[in-house]
Amino acid sequence: MGKVYLVGAGPGAADLLTVRAARLLGRADVVFHDALVDGEVLALAPQAHLVAVGKRCGQLSTVQQFINRQLVDAARRHACVVRLKGGDPMLFGRAQEEIAALARAGIEVEVVPGISAAFGASSALGLSLTRRGLSRSVVFLTPAVGNGERPHAWADAARGADTVVLYMASRQAEAIAQGLMAAGMAPGRPAVLVENASLPAQRVLPTTLERLPQAARELGSGPALIMVGEIYAELLEQAAGRLDAETRRTAAA
Amino acid sequence: MGKVYLVGAGPGAADLLTVRAARLLGRADVVFHDALVDGEVLALAPQAHLVAVGKRCGQLSTVQQFINRQLVDAARRHACVVRLKGGDPMLFGRAQEEIAALARAGIEVEVVPGISAAFGASSALGLSLTRRGLSRSVVFLTPAVGNGERPHAWADAARGADTVVLYMASRQAEAIAQGLMAAGMAPGRPAVLVENASLPAQRVLPTTLERLPQAARELGSGPALIMVGEIYAELLEQAAGRLDAETRRTAAA
Repeated sequence: MGKVYLVGAGPGAADLLTVRAARLLGRADVVFHDALVDGEVLALAPQAHLVAVGKRCGQLSTVQQFINRQLVDAARRHACVVRLKGGDPMLFGRAQEEIAALARAGIEVEVVPGISAAFGASSALGLSLTRRGLSRSVVFLTPAVGNGERPHAWADAARGADTVVLYMASRQAEAIAQGLMAAGMAPGRPAVLVENASLPAQRVLPTTLERLPQAARELGSGPALIMVGEIYAELLEQAAGRLDAETRRTAAA
Repeated sequence: MGKVYLVGAGPGAADLLTVRAARLLGRADVVFHDALVDGEVLALAPQAHLVAVGKRCGQLSTVQQFINRQLVDAARRHACVVRLKGGDPMLFGRAQEEIAALARAGIEVEVVPGISAAFGASSALGLSLTRRGLSRSVVFLTPAVGNGERPHAWADAARGADTVVLYMASRQAEAIAQGLMAAGMAPGRPAVLVENASLPAQRVLPTTLERLPQAARELGSGPALIMVGEIYAELLEQAAGRLDAETRRTAAA
C-alpha cells in the first residue's frame, strides 16, 4: 500500500515550491496535478506518470469523486503518489474531501504546505498584507454568488477586515464589486488584480472597487487574484504618476 | 551596493523553506534573523555571518529603526544580505517598514515568500482552513488588546469569517476569548492551539473558546497560533474519544 502526499505547488514559479515538495516530486511514481500547474513545476518529476485533473476558472472540472477514486487506485499500485495542487492545499483546495476519501480507504496521507497565491502576489508587489496603522487583519474568501442565500451574503466575511483577498473571483468581478459595496466599502477603495503571480507572464492591474469589472476584462486566462484595501492606494498613485508623465511627454511632442 | 532579500523562513522545519529561499541562504554573506528561527534553518547558511534581531512573544524587541539601519549598512558592505523572518514576510512581519527604509537608502530589495504558520499548522493537523459547507472564509489577525480604542475593537474583523486565525496571541488568551465572545461567537465554539508547528516539538491543544485561557496556560515558550472555527470540532471529538477510552481502561483495571 502506497502513501499519498497532498502537495502545494505554490503560486507558479518552480523555485517557490518548498524543498520538501521538490524532493517528493523527485521521487514520485505518479503525480495528479491541477491543470493550471506550470510546466516547470511538473519538470521536477521527470520520472513520474503525470495525470492532469480538474480545471479552474469556470471551466469544466473533473468530478471530485472521480479524482478521489483515482488517488485510492494509484496508492494501491504505487509507493509514492503526489496530488499537486496550486498554491496551498489547505486554502480553497478541496483537500478535506480527498483526505476523507483516502482515510476511508485506509490509505496514509501527508499534507505538504505551499505558498498560497496571495503571498506570491504580495512578495511580487513588495506590499505587505499587514501594515502598522493601516492593516491589522486580512480575510481570504471566495465569493459564492447566487447560490440561493440572500444576495451578497458571502461579503459579510469582508466587512470587518482591513484587507480582503478574493480567490477564484476574477470572472465574477461585477458581482464582487457590488457585494463589497453593499457590505459598506467605498466605491473608491483601492484594489489590485494580479494574474500569473510570480511567473514571467505576471500582470498587475491597480484599480478601485467600482472600476473592478473594467479592470477584470483586461485579464487573460491565467489564474488571478483580487485584493482590496487601503494598502493598495500607493499602486494607484504610482499608476497615476506614470499616466501624468506620459501625458506631459505627449503634450511636449 | 548589495541587495537585500526579505525571506520567509516558514513555520519551523528547514525543508519547508522554498527552494528559492534555501538557495539564497546558501549564498548569503550576512543573515539577519528573527530570534525564533530554528537552528536547522540557519544551518542552510553555513558561510554567512548570522545576526539575531528581535524577539517575539512579549520579550524585548530590538528597535525596528535599529534593524533598518543595520540592513542598510550591511547592503553597503556585502553583495547578498538576507533578512530572514519567521513564516511569510508579508503577514505580520513588519516588512513594509524595512522595505521603505531600504528604498529610501536606494538599496534594491526583493521579497521571497514563506509558508505562514497557519498553513504549516493546517498541514500538520490534516485540517483544511476552508471546507465545503463549513468554511468559506478565513481571517488572519493579531489582537491589539487595550490600545486605546473601544474594548474588543480588534475582534470586529473576526465577526463574519468562518475560521479565525490569531497570530502572536497566545499570551493574551483571556482577552481574546472575551473579545471573540463579545463579537458574538458562542463560548463552546471549537478552537485549537498549535505550538511549534511542523517542528518535532509540535503540540496540538484542542479546546473551546471559553476554555482557551486554561489551554493557553499549558503552552511552552515556542511560537504558537490560535485557530477558531467549526472545522476544529472533530479535534474535540477525537480528544473526547481518547478520554473515554482511557476512562474505560482505568475502570477495567
